[in-house]
Amino acid sequence: MSTVRVAGVGLTPFGAHPDRTTRDLFAEAGVTATRDAKVPLGDIDAVYFGNFVGELAEDQGHQGPIVAESLGVQAPATRFESACASSGVAVRHAVRAIDSGRADVVIVGGAERMTHVGTDGATAMLATAADAIHESNAGMTFPGAYAIMTDAYFRRHGGSRRDLAHVAVKNHEHALENEYAQFQSRVTVDEVLEAPTVASPLGLLDACPVTDGASALVLVSEQYAAEHTIDAPVAVTGSGQGTDRAALQDRETPCRTPATERAAVEAYEMAGIAADTVDVVEVHDCFTCAEVFALEGLGLFDPGEAITAAREGATWRDGVLPVNCSGGLKAKGHPVGATGASQIVELTRLLRGDHPNSDYVADALTGVAHSAGGTVASTTVHVLEVVG
Amino acid sequence: MSTVRVAGVGLTPFGAHPDRTTRDLFAEAGVTATRDAKVPLGDIDAVYFGNFVGELAEDQGHQGPIVAESLGVQAPATRFESACASSGVAVRHAVRAIDSGRADVVIVGGAERMTHVGTDGATAMLATAADAIHESNAGMTFPGAYAIMTDAYFRRHGGSRRDLAHVAVKNHEHALENEYAQFQSRVTVDEVLEAPTVASPLGLLDACPVTDGASALVLVSEQYAAEHTIDAPVAVTGSGQGTDRAALQDRETPCRTPATERAAVEAYEMAGIAADTVDVVEVHDCFTCAEVFALEGLGLFDPGEAITAAREGATWRDGVLPVNCSGGLKAKGHPVGATGASQIVELTRLLRGDHPNSDYVADALTGVAHSAGGTVASTTVHVLEVVG
Repeated sequence: MSTVRVAGVGLTPFGAHPDRTTRDLFAEAGVTATRDAKVPLGDIDAVYFGNFVGELAEDQGHQGPIVAESLGVQAPATRFESACASSGVAVRHAVRAIDSGRADVVIVGGAERMTHVGTDGATAMLATAADAIHESNAGMTFPGAYAIMTDAYFRRHGGSRRDLAHVAVKNHEHALENEYAQFQSRVTVDEVLEAPTVASPLGLLDACPVTDGASALVLVSEQYAAEHTIDAPVAVTGSGQGTDRAALQDRETPCRTPATERAAVEAYEMAGIAADTVDVVEVHDCFTCAEVFALEGLGLFDPGEAITAAREGATWRDGVLPVNCSGGLKAKGHPVGATGASQIVELTRLLRGDHPNSDYVADALTGVAHSAGGTVASTTVHVLEVVG
Repeated sequence: MSTVRVAGVGLTPFGAHPDRTTRDLFAEAGVTATRDAKVPLGDIDAVYFGNFVGELAEDQGHQGPIVAESLGVQAPATRFESACASSGVAVRHAVRAIDSGRADVVIVGGAERMTHVGTDGATAMLATAADAIHESNAGMTFPGAYAIMTDAYFRRHGGSRRDLAHVAVKNHEHALENEYAQFQSRVTVDEVLEAPTVASPLGLLDACPVTDGASALVLVSEQYAAEHTIDAPVAVTGSGQGTDRAALQDRETPCRTPATERAAVEAYEMAGIAADTVDVVEVHDCFTCAEVFALEGLGLFDPGEAITAAREGATWRDGVLPVNCSGGLKAKGHPVGATGASQIVELTRLLRGDHPNSDYVADALTGVAHSAGGTVASTTVHVLEVVG
């Protein structure tokens, strides 16, 4: 067994880059990460790459070997797909490969491009993450699915669109100084409430954007870090992966996310922590409501209690539990295959002190990243700790 | 470290099943495998699933959770994609997860359906395994790419279409009694030579078919097998994964496959064997020429020497090195995401004595499976041994 150290991180700016390709975006993030890590490309044992719909977006499957080549790495390369949790799952497998002694150095991340296909194209692509037979082919879209989940939550626990609007306001504020964020602009509660309806009760500003971008991490074993005198104070001490039924109709209730609960249990146990040890969190806020579901699934708030957390200031960067200091998917953006690993990038920057919002979490020692695919049919949870 | 035992295997019949879905096909193979293994579904630690183009073929991505649910398994589920090596890569990761002690029981396999989209649809889907920028978008198809590789081989080493035809004749003969094979019919050398040209020098009968089907393996740790008194005489003792540049233009030569060589080196070293120890082989014969490349990449024949192996009888089931006793991709079929794991299924059946062709390899103790993606830009090699 070996502790896994985050030796280097890299992101491309998230946004609209219709002239870039997936391989090109990942190469940029990967080069940034390997330079940050000061690890020679020849030391990389494997490339783990998350991507959701390269086949649809650019007629390109088989991207494992392709992105490895673009990065200039000759090593076994594997592509993972789990919808919006694609690179979360890639990270999970990379962490387990290193901590079980099978690898010393893994470059893991993801990339996606989708802005060039237009709204209808993006909606169709995103729908492939839902259940095609029972959901998408019946006409349900992704916002529609999350709207169902939100409505169920309101009925069971109460809460309002105004409460959710505070999540959007918070995450936009957090992203203001994040140089990688797609949006560096404030929104107000009224703007969120008055935005066009996408799928009631969710409006345009409850939803994360369509984004192009890439993320990369260089993960190393404790031994490698020691032998090469690598400065890597942040370690991944816990990893969990969870699964749930895909179609909402088969869930016990649409407003609870057991896949998150399962992944959290595994990750916390591996790290030897409890939920109340957590100092800072990055969660999968594909919609404002998703942040609420995630916080409860992670055991950070009791069921029904997370809906007012943003409104009451608890989850602001200066609150008792800072959530999505990166800006989250909402303001930082959501290049689908890249997002899971990007959360680890942002938590690492926050914990080691080189994130624009690091000052707000200067005493943080334990961070948690939550990545979810589809309507949370797949999840990963990772625990990061400052180990010095 | 733990030896990995193959506790159970399952296949659906390979062929045209346009009324079946991917999840349904995998559930069938998975149920067969778990029953063969006599392992309770609740003991499964993870589901590793290979699939190439579910997004294109049935508007369904995110198939990890979906197939797990179809199988009735509640466990973390991961989808792997590496073109035609998708489930080969899934098996590789499953083997390493168990041998490093991270899991005790993994169900791993794959599924694909493509017959329902017609020839043009299938051609377009398969092309996503090549390099979209440098190859597919310039008009190259998969047969075209392999035709280039074949032509390069003929120029460098000699050989003829007639030599390749013997590979097709051999594999069809091998499949005659294979109840899962798509084709249980002989072909003659003349029929192969007279078949319509697809991409010169490859004709229709040099090419594997488009296929629907699924495969599944239940892999267990040594400890689990002992504790549950599982009869699993076949172990996976070696695993290798290799990568090469995707576009043919970037290869040193199109007629050599370094990805296979790299994966073989890793697998043989892990198993502690040499190429001359190998008794029986299943290779990725997406085209007749691909069998030739594979045998040389695996070090079973020297460069230039495998072209006449089938013609001279060396690789027939009654020859010195039986190759593709299952019928190979050529006659057994090639449901893309399922193929890699299906080779392990067939080798297991051959080695443990319950394959229609087992009598021909009754003394075999060591088998090798070779799975390749695209024009061999990604590969896996697995060594199986009878350990009692």
